[in-house]
Amino acid sequence: MSTVAKTSLQEDFFEYYKQIESYEEAIKLMAWDLRTKAPKKGVQRRSETLSFLSQKVHELKTSDQIKSYIDQLRDTEDPVVKRSIELVEKDYNKTKKIPVDEFKEFVELTSQAESVWSEAREKSDFELFRPYLEKIVDFNIKFAEYWGYKDNRYDALLDGFEPGVTVQTLDQVFPKLRKDLGDLIHKVNQSTNQPNTEQILKHFPKEKQEQFALKVLEKMGYDFEAGRLDETVHPFAININHDDVRVTTRYDEQDFRMAVFGTIHEGGHALYEQGLNRDMYDTPVGNSVSMGIHESQSLFWENFVGRNETFWEEFYDLFLAYAPDSFKGLPKDEFYRAVNEVKPTFIRIEADEMTYPLHIMIRYELEKGLINEEIEVKDLPKLWNDKMEEYLGIRPEQDADGVLQDVHWSGGDFGYFPSYALGYMYGAQIRTALNHSVSIDDCIKNNDLAPIKDWLNENIHQKGSMLEPLDLLKEVTGEGLNPDHLVNYLDEKYGKIYKW
Amino acid sequence: MSTVAKTSLQEDFFEYYKQIESYEEAIKLMAWDLRTKAPKKGVQRRSETLSFLSQKVHELKTSDQIKSYIDQLRDTEDPVVKRSIELVEKDYNKTKKIPVDEFKEFVELTSQAESVWSEAREKSDFELFRPYLEKIVDFNIKFAEYWGYKDNRYDALLDGFEPGVTVQTLDQVFPKLRKDLGDLIHKVNQSTNQPNTEQILKHFPKEKQEQFALKVLEKMGYDFEAGRLDETVHPFAININHDDVRVTTRYDEQDFRMAVFGTIHEGGHALYEQGLNRDMYDTPVGNSVSMGIHESQSLFWENFVGRNETFWEEFYDLFLAYAPDSFKGLPKDEFYRAVNEVKPTFIRIEADEMTYPLHIMIRYELEKGLINEEIEVKDLPKLWNDKMEEYLGIRPEQDADGVLQDVHWSGGDFGYFPSYALGYMYGAQIRTALNHSVSIDDCIKNNDLAPIKDWLNENIHQKGSMLEPLDLLKEVTGEGLNPDHLVNYLDEKYGKIYKW
Repeated sequence: MSTVAKTSLQEDFFEYYKQIESYEEAIKLMAWDLRTKAPKKGVQRRSETLSFLSQKVHELKTSDQIKSYIDQLRDTEDPVVKRSIELVEKDYNKTKKIPVDEFKEFVELTSQAESVWSEAREKSDFELFRPYLEKIVDFNIKFAEYWGYKDNRYDALLDGFEPGVTVQTLDQVFPKLRKDLGDLIHKVNQSTNQPNTEQILKHFPKEKQEQFALKVLEKMGYDFEAGRLDETVHPFAININHDDVRVTTRYDEQDFRMAVFGTIHEGGHALYEQGLNRDMYDTPVGNSVSMGIHESQSLFWENFVGRNETFWEEFYDLFLAYAPDSFKGLPKDEFYRAVNEVKPTFIRIEADEMTYPLHIMIRYELEKGLINEEIEVKDLPKLWNDKMEEYLGIRPEQDADGVLQDVHWSGGDFGYFPSYALGYMYGAQIRTALNHSVSIDDCIKNNDLAPIKDWLNENIHQKGSMLEPLDLLKEVTGEGLNPDHLVNYLDEKYGKIYKW
Repeated sequence: MSTVAKTSLQEDFFEYYKQIESYEEAIKLMAWDLRTKAPKKGVQRRSETLSFLSQKVHELKTSDQIKSYIDQLRDTEDPVVKRSIELVEKDYNKTKKIPVDEFKEFVELTSQAESVWSEAREKSDFELFRPYLEKIVDFNIKFAEYWGYKDNRYDALLDGFEPGVTVQTLDQVFPKLRKDLGDLIHKVNQSTNQPNTEQILKHFPKEKQEQFALKVLEKMGYDFEAGRLDETVHPFAININHDDVRVTTRYDEQDFRMAVFGTIHEGGHALYEQGLNRDMYDTPVGNSVSMGIHESQSLFWENFVGRNETFWEEFYDLFLAYAPDSFKGLPKDEFYRAVNEVKPTFIRIEADEMTYPLHIMIRYELEKGLINEEIEVKDLPKLWNDKMEEYLGIRPEQDADGVLQDVHWSGGDFGYFPSYALGYMYGAQIRTALNHSVSIDDCIKNNDLAPIKDWLNENIHQKGSMLEPLDLLKEVTGEGLNPDHLVNYLDEKYGKIYKW
């Protein structure tokens, strides 16, 4: 773990902490199973077991025992122990600040809210979901007050997903990013050189998509002896334990992009988990550092590798080997341009590389407004649609395509969305840094992606949670959050596609 | 649960007990996953989590708290509470009698022994496994002494799998059963009317076997909303929770019998679990009562339904709809006789209905000898082969086909094997009783197996663990253990097949 020999107290602390990881393994396997395999009648009892095990984790995280470890080890010199205690103490303090009854009520509320949201989305009826969302917002406001903040109440929530990032950070970069993306989208719209996506939306049997997806995961260096690929409705990657990191995907036989780019995306998450530092396993610093850094890894692989021109120059023949005959006549170049079409969509998860951050900004602004009590839940549908029109030039006709599209709020998560845009900007900055020592295009041309994975392993993954996200970014890229790398990447790439 | 209102103390006790069931759900999901899906590198950490969770169960089962519930509730009138306390107390006493260190040592030994056994079987080298088996036998002897017994040390071990059954019980029925089976096998061997199994050992694609197996499970009344079918190496059924009871099977493309009869067998186990009393869920009486009664259910479906002549008369066309064309010319009658061929085999799990109990008797006699220190582990290979020759007329040429074939001993399980033969005899007795009110053949002819399942639900499954196995048998069949039902069934069935 580190070169300093552990004292017996330190060993006891890590042994104690390992219990949390053991419970988490059971919880995560259950979650994976619920989302891939579990028969529906078993869900009720399963939920009770999940809640029981979560309660055990909660007890371990807030016990007098852990407080005693924190107090005794706070001033340790060993950096791994020190940082571990820092993370555990933060968690302890945050958890302790919420009255147990309120937290329980919140957990029950959100577990109901998810199925209500699901029904509301199906019926495209925001009113069904509104009372739940109002309560969820109220809880988040209360929690933010319990936790405390310096400048903006929303900072207290951001901290749960991207420690160190504040409203101030985001308000410094989002307006500029929005303007730059707007300019790029304008150029796209003006272009007379539009790709034709009709050509790629052809029937592609699921089994063949799966075979190709497995092939790509293999090329990325995903370790199948420490993971597997399964089917699900809402794709995710999950580290059941550090040597069992699973990927899931969804197959749309009329649109292979869902499974192919989705698998590469989740594979990027999985490579992060598989690349963590073995010496730190089962310690508080042995896990990924933040949602944003995680997303930087998935978007890195999905966009900078998977949607890369060289990638398709090299792997198009492989793709055709799995694709139905109907793809055979389609030239490589047209295929590449089609999978990179820029076109505003209502649904965030279907968005292209260029419009995606705008979807996030809309959510960020609405969340910030709700938490600071500047806007009300009842006005959300209209505000959402207004912003869609303002940012993307399209207006949803039903709430299912607007305010009801994402699961996050029903799960109680406020402050999560910005991680997606942060991850994208981090990813572009990491791309610049990586390209200085390893050329992505050369690796692809050599049919050997290992140097990319190795670089990410060494510079990001191996560091676990030793550094805060922005400190890690600084260490890896030499600078703070800077949206220019993303804008420059998009400008260069899409200038070629749309010929400006 | 029962009509008597629960006192607060009783409620507390059941709430306490439910924690054990919650941990067990996590443990069983992990076990299912390890045997169906889990990537191999994750196994090491998974084992640690399994051991951690098992430790938690052990703590709950041996706590002062549970002792206090036992002492306070022992004389309750409510029969469900009374029987629950009885079961929990028995478990408490047995667990408490083993010194913690010895138990831990035993768990570690058996977890190593399984992989050693696996290697030994692969190399057919008994000497590799011998030192482990010697220790396992010694532990079992020690445990039997801790637990205590009246007549025979082996009784203490039998009690763990088939409470109420003793050496005396077995020694009353096995010799007669052995003689009767010997007579039947002699008639089979004398018959000039031998079936031809060559005709059914034809290539049968896995996917098609799976489709047919699913169809049969459906006909049996297996609830797919409360379970699923997966592939594995060593098939099993498992109740992850009471509404999530999974079946697994193995496919041999050269011999469909493995998957088809295997699935029916495991489906029989699953119907027991799915048929338990909902009002008793999460209580000590809410589970299946013994290994023998469990096996009576799986063998009932596998043999009395699945290998039944009427079954194939009615379902042969359905089978042919999934089978490859090469089966098409094979007459129904020849097919039926071929799947019921009697032929001594080295491997127990490949044995036919008639020779199967002889495999069990060999194991029983060797186990009894070992535990009573009348024979030694080092002599097992020879003794095994001698008995095979004596009972079945064939002598294994290598230990992989003899003493090394079963996993049970490596897992530390002594006293388990007799359940297989008991279950078979129970099953035949249950068949007689069931046929008095529901005709199996009529149900098959009506293409409606529900009355069979319903009868088993009502008479066996719904009773959970309220009665000891032999008491349940008495209640259901009106008599004690009686091997004649099995012998008569075999005589009648095989007299027709082999024409005597």
